[in-house]
Amino acid sequence: MVITGEINLRTRGDGDIADITAGVEKVIMDSRLTSGIVTVFVSGSTAGVTTIEYEPGLVADFNKLWARLVPDNTPYDHDARWGDGNGYAHVRASLLGASLTIPFTDRKMALGTWQQIILVDFDNRPRQRTVVVQVMGE
Amino acid sequence: MVITGEINLRTRGDGDIADITAGVEKVIMDSRLTSGIVTVFVSGSTAGVTTIEYEPGLVADFNKLWARLVPDNTPYDHDARWGDGNGYAHVRASLLGASLTIPFTDRKMALGTWQQIILVDFDNRPRQRTVVVQVMGE
Amino acid sequence: MVITGEINLRTRGDGDIADITAGVEKVIMDSRLTSGIVTVFVSGSTAGVTTIEYEPGLVADFNKLWARLVPDNTPYDHDARWGDGNGYAHVRASLLGASLTIPFTDRKMALGTWQQIILVDFDNRPRQRTVVVQVMGE
Repeated sequence: MVITGEINLRTRGDGDIADITAGVEKVIMDSRLTSGIVTVFVSGSTAGVTTIEYEPGLVADFNKLWARLVPDNTPYDHDARWGDGNGYAHVRASLLGASLTIPFTDRKMALGTWQQIILVDFDNRPRQRTVVVQVMGE
Repeated sequence: MVITGEINLRTRGDGDIADITAGVEKVIMDSRLTSGIVTVFVSGSTAGVTTIEYEPGLVADFNKLWARLVPDNTPYDHDARWGDGNGYAHVRASLLGASLTIPFTDRKMALGTWQQIILVDFDNRPRQRTVVVQVMGE
Repeated sequence: MVITGEINLRTRGDGDIADITAGVEKVIMDSRLTSGIVTVFVSGSTAGVTTIEYEPGLVADFNKLWARLVPDNTPYDHDARWGDGNGYAHVRASLLGASLTIPFTDRKMALGTWQQIILVDFDNRPRQRTVVVQVMGE
């Protein structure tokens, strides 16, 4: 059985990190499946998904990492060609990755106690985002 | 239902980035499944997969990232032990990751308009690569 | 069909890298499924999973990468707030990622010859870890 849901949210862009754990849980609950995997996938090339302990300190630390690894104030060929100004956001998103798969049993994801699912929006402006949440199992 | 396909391609190595989106789409079409997930996995330890807006600017930017994060001109223990000279390629591949999972519905992947699936071959020589594409669903 | 297994292991923390390939293979064999995907997911926010050629040189190289990209001797907001001292471990884990999906056919994973599945424990102390291994297929 395959059940497909969506999380739609408005971000501030610029490294905005949203905790989408409850939205993913809701798709699992609504699916009435008891065990299987949930795939979380962000459509778009300037955002990514991962897990983190979602607290303000780590949200700040994670953003500082990206500022250091992939600076927004150095030249990008993407920007030279297209004038978008968000080359750094694309590069960060490709490094982080757009998909995440999490097993669940008894309707409960295998997340640790301090482990939340996040959407990281690297783009240089607020965005409307769609995260596809697909549940497969029995 | 599980359908397994393969994309076989020759790369130039050295950060060669190939757009494999059409190859993945073909496996989904041939599977005749309408919804589910497709898993894209590269066999081998010196290449990875991710998504990107596939245009020459970002292809160049992504390679510059790797040159900066994991330089090819510093010593690696792998090379000291085995003399392969591709320690940097292994480290880059392990950081990027070998797998990607993408939901599809109505035979269409949840990719954004400017989001393509790529194989990044970090090895220090041209390689024949096999990307396993497995479709599961209904 | 969905079969869920676990790998339980004790790590030394501090970048300890464990080859868990045999444990994943065992869950596939015990499942009696012949083809499908296996999802490998680490519960917890200070460890990650990926693939690597598991040999001492690359294990050392991969740890050197993390020490350089996400140093353990610079200030983290997480540590300032909570006094845990493992902010770097959280950030590394979020960048590497907690999940990996691998297709298998004829009970054999699509891994390359020199490609092993690893758990990387970034935490600043030894940990008891649970890796959830879920097999889905036919």
